[in-house]
Amino acid sequence: MTSRLLIIGGAAGPALLGRFVELAGGPGARIVVIATASSDPDAAEAEHLAAFDRHGARHVEALRLGDRVAANDPRVEPVLRAATGVFFTGGDQERITRIIGGTATDTLLQELVAAGTVVLAGTSAGAAMMSGTMIVEGEGPGVSRASVRTGPGLEFLPGVLIDQHFAERGRINRLLSAVALYPHELGLGIDEDTAILTDGDAFEVLGSGAVTVVDAGRATDIRTPEAGPITLAGCSLHVLPAGHAFHLTGREPRP
Amino acid sequence: MTSRLLIIGGAAGPALLGRFVELAGGPGARIVVIATASSDPDAAEAEHLAAFDRHGARHVEALRLGDRVAANDPRVEPVLRAATGVFFTGGDQERITRIIGGTATDTLLQELVAAGTVVLAGTSAGAAMMSGTMIVEGEGPGVSRASVRTGPGLEFLPGVLIDQHFAERGRINRLLSAVALYPHELGLGIDEDTAILTDGDAFEVLGSGAVTVVDAGRATDIRTPEAGPITLAGCSLHVLPAGHAFHLTGREPRP
Repeated sequence: MTSRLLIIGGAAGPALLGRFVELAGGPGARIVVIATASSDPDAAEAEHLAAFDRHGARHVEALRLGDRVAANDPRVEPVLRAATGVFFTGGDQERITRIIGGTATDTLLQELVAAGTVVLAGTSAGAAMMSGTMIVEGEGPGVSRASVRTGPGLEFLPGVLIDQHFAERGRINRLLSAVALYPHELGLGIDEDTAILTDGDAFEVLGSGAVTVVDAGRATDIRTPEAGPITLAGCSLHVLPAGHAFHLTGREPRP
Repeated sequence: MTSRLLIIGGAAGPALLGRFVELAGGPGARIVVIATASSDPDAAEAEHLAAFDRHGARHVEALRLGDRVAANDPRVEPVLRAATGVFFTGGDQERITRIIGGTATDTLLQELVAAGTVVLAGTSAGAAMMSGTMIVEGEGPGVSRASVRTGPGLEFLPGVLIDQHFAERGRINRLLSAVALYPHELGLGIDEDTAILTDGDAFEVLGSGAVTVVDAGRATDIRTPEAGPITLAGCSLHVLPAGHAFHLTGREPRP
């Protein structure tokens, strides 16, 4: 089986949450909610447990990983090995990478996702951490170094930079800044109530908004001065609503 | 002589205003300020007259065109024929097209700009009206029909769609929406205190920000439904700070 990732730009509506339950096995799904990103995990867990329950998943539980001791606790392993779907809530993506990065939980999730036994989903911060390099913050005007700060993600989907709440928060400048600095990475801007569902080397767009792909791979001129505006000439851009697919290594929309 | 247009994204600093005076002839420049776009023309005229005076232009005057009768008044002609530079202030671009469009002033300005005897500058609304199609309004999230409303401009620079205050107001979605609807037009997003200076079929970028060019000319898939997100696959994008040039009909940055 190939690994399946459902990466949601925040504010997932019923259709996307229902799709996750279906991907995880429908009524037989065993879903684990991880609210490590949230500063109020009680609320985030309760909200998501109720939502997945409403969508017909019979086994839904929260796995509270509030610090690295918990993320290295051997009692995590049987919970995750029994799961068919794991869902990361929103909050602060650096809490996820700081608490889970390099722990036994991290290693085991990589194994289960690669083997295709677990569908891994994340929304907002839970989406950002999926990529090899994640956008941590940055709202500056224009395309510049000051407009973005990045850090390493958990690398479930290497070769991409993911931004979320994309249209709603007008984040294209920081995504363009990031791909100008790291043109190896494809920039994916995911709107709210919108997701990509990966299938091997491609993804499909789901939900009510669009995914914006920015590709500086064939840019002819990139200059990233310490201060002032970035030069980025020859960048490709694709705005893809639901129903479209994109090939990651080919760097182009798929018919 | 070729026509010279100085198209400013708003909030022009001293360097850009000084450059306009220099292009219009330096100390010998004869500058005419047209504040038709402004709802407070007294203030807009006074501000710009003082600025051009500070930059050493000895002949600076305001031409008050508050309605179509004024714009068709034969007394406009000697004023404009004596000018070496004409500057349109900001405000509401539809006031410019509604009051000046098709009048004797419009016809005469087209002639003088084409002949190269007048350098034509405009900031903000005065920039928007330069293009064949101008963006009138639209701030909706995402790339969609609802995100932009366009109308015909005065066509000093055909083949482009100009947006201003570009990075500062996060306007890329409305520019992408516009070029998806009208891929014939090159989309130019000009930041504040930033300008393009045209030279025949090319332009140079001046000022402290950047010009973002979006080009849907080679887009492979464009779908613009009445409601919901637009599809725009294969769009090219260039972020060009000062010192860069762009070839308009070639649709590519110039070395």
